[in-house]
Amino acid sequence: MQNVTLNVQGMSCGHCVKAVEGSVGELEGVNGVAVKLDEALVDVSFNESQITLDKIKETIEEQGYDVV
Amino acid sequence: MQNVTLNVQGMSCGHCVKAVEGSVGELEGVNGVAVKLDEALVDVSFNESQITLDKIKETIEEQGYDVV
Repeated sequence: MQNVTLNVQGMSCGHCVKAVEGSVGELEGVNGVAVKLDEALVDVSFNESQITLDKIKETIEEQGYDVV
Repeated sequence: MQNVTLNVQGMSCGHCVKAVEGSVGELEGVNGVAVKLDEALVDVSFNESQITLDKIKETIEEQGYDVV
């Protein structure tokens, strides 16, 4: 299990929180995801034998946000 | 037919645009709705014999935004 905190730009409202948490949360291998909107942070807990961090970042970017 | 432009605070992203346009657009008596995100404006065209402006404002506020 690995825990990472990503800096994600462009999340501005509750809909954005849902878009990120929903899309990342449904990925196989992701055990938990929590957006801190005020800090532009996304905490993700995942199993590195099932999913890569790159795939998680890509999923966030597909929702229209920038992982920096 | 009546056309009004409302000043709506709190719309920050494309999801907000969809939330406002979707909820107002499906009201009976509303013929058109367009959000100008950068200007915090919502243009609404409606038939005043079918719906009141107050009902339209209420619908926007139910989505979490302030009509000012």
